[in-house]
Amino acid sequence: MIELVGLDADDTLWHNEPLFTSRREQFCAMLARYEPQGVPEDRLYATEMRNLQHFGYGVKGFVLSMIETAIDMTDGRLEAGDVRTIIEWGREMLAGPIRLLDGVSEAVEGLARDYPVILVTKGDLLDQETKLARSGLGHLFKAIEIVSDKNTEVYRKLIARYRVDPNRFVMVGNSLRSDVLPVVEAGAHAVHVPYEMSWAHEQVPADALTSIRYHEISHIRDLPRLLQTLRGV
Amino acid sequence: MIELVGLDADDTLWHNEPLFTSRREQFCAMLARYEPQGVPEDRLYATEMRNLQHFGYGVKGFVLSMIETAIDMTDGRLEAGDVRTIIEWGREMLAGPIRLLDGVSEAVEGLARDYPVILVTKGDLLDQETKLARSGLGHLFKAIEIVSDKNTEVYRKLIARYRVDPNRFVMVGNSLRSDVLPVVEAGAHAVHVPYEMSWAHEQVPADALTSIRYHEISHIRDLPRLLQTLRGV
Repeated sequence: MIELVGLDADDTLWHNEPLFTSRREQFCAMLARYEPQGVPEDRLYATEMRNLQHFGYGVKGFVLSMIETAIDMTDGRLEAGDVRTIIEWGREMLAGPIRLLDGVSEAVEGLARDYPVILVTKGDLLDQETKLARSGLGHLFKAIEIVSDKNTEVYRKLIARYRVDPNRFVMVGNSLRSDVLPVVEAGAHAVHVPYEMSWAHEQVPADALTSIRYHEISHIRDLPRLLQTLRGV
Repeated sequence: MIELVGLDADDTLWHNEPLFTSRREQFCAMLARYEPQGVPEDRLYATEMRNLQHFGYGVKGFVLSMIETAIDMTDGRLEAGDVRTIIEWGREMLAGPIRLLDGVSEAVEGLARDYPVILVTKGDLLDQETKLARSGLGHLFKAIEIVSDKNTEVYRKLIARYRVDPNRFVMVGNSLRSDVLPVVEAGAHAVHVPYEMSWAHEQVPADALTSIRYHEISHIRDLPRLLQTLRGV
């Protein structure tokens, strides 16, 4: 039935969004000292969205967007020491320990015994590679696919490159926007494993989900049982 | 004989280093206004090398290193407006037009008629993808390999993944450090096409070259003729 399993990484295998959330909080606290007009979190999000086409996903673009937003919101009064602090946050995010989600190690090991499993993730190339290396899970994956964006076209090409029928591919991840919608659009199976929080950019309007078919499980350890139940694929 | 041709991108297919060189000059001119101690170019290079393990290759890491160096060298007197200017340079570098090297378009077209050709490049994922898209050469490549570093291990894995004998793979590029030395080390063929300038990091000591065998041509259009002459492969 299923011939290839794709797993998302951030917030599917290891905790990621909390790192960003806590930095966003520190960022707001930093700006509060300058008493800026407006809501830092909203302004930062707007800068990130504007920069996405240039900087892509990942920590480095996040850092550059924080610096830009801080300069804007303080009318240029931002002190150089605070710029340095923001860059240091970035370096810490890139080098920090990887915290696997509970039970992930055993779940992926079990999965890899029964299916070829690939990692499909977006973000900074080097960052994602070193996170995988630090996670200790690298040997369980047949291949690592780090992509600049997760859209239907990217999934179509990926599935074709592995020479599997879309019907025989399943993608598993925490993001409805990146791991579910474009996968279903590409004719493959998608399994949603919700995480405790998600970046605003990864959220989708509820009506985008009414007309599509996908699965939802609460933990990746439930995946093998689900895959065995898939029929007509 | 040759079953797979790998082409480097930056400064092999299109001009790249001049973009960095001119920004380095602007960076030095910016710092001259603060009258800092030391040589900005050397300090910037040292920062880039220190950051390489965290930020990897590419424009975003270059921008972050410029900001850090500027703050260091001005003892924190760097004005926020100048930080903003440096980020703007980065955005311009990421969005600017692609200038192909003379004759490259015809040369790669000819090559792609006779061999499967893949692009092998390092740097920011999104940046390299959009450069290729803007270059108009994308359709000539069988696959695009964007890697975080070009070392022997990376080439070994890449060659294995394409299921060709190392003897049947040739890599072509302007960097002795990235496109020649590790390729020869991996047992494959390497062709050096020197570019008019190179980043200090890409240079290798002359004695590293005395004991290895590789080819050198002055233009990529000479490649098909060279490939036909390869024997005993």
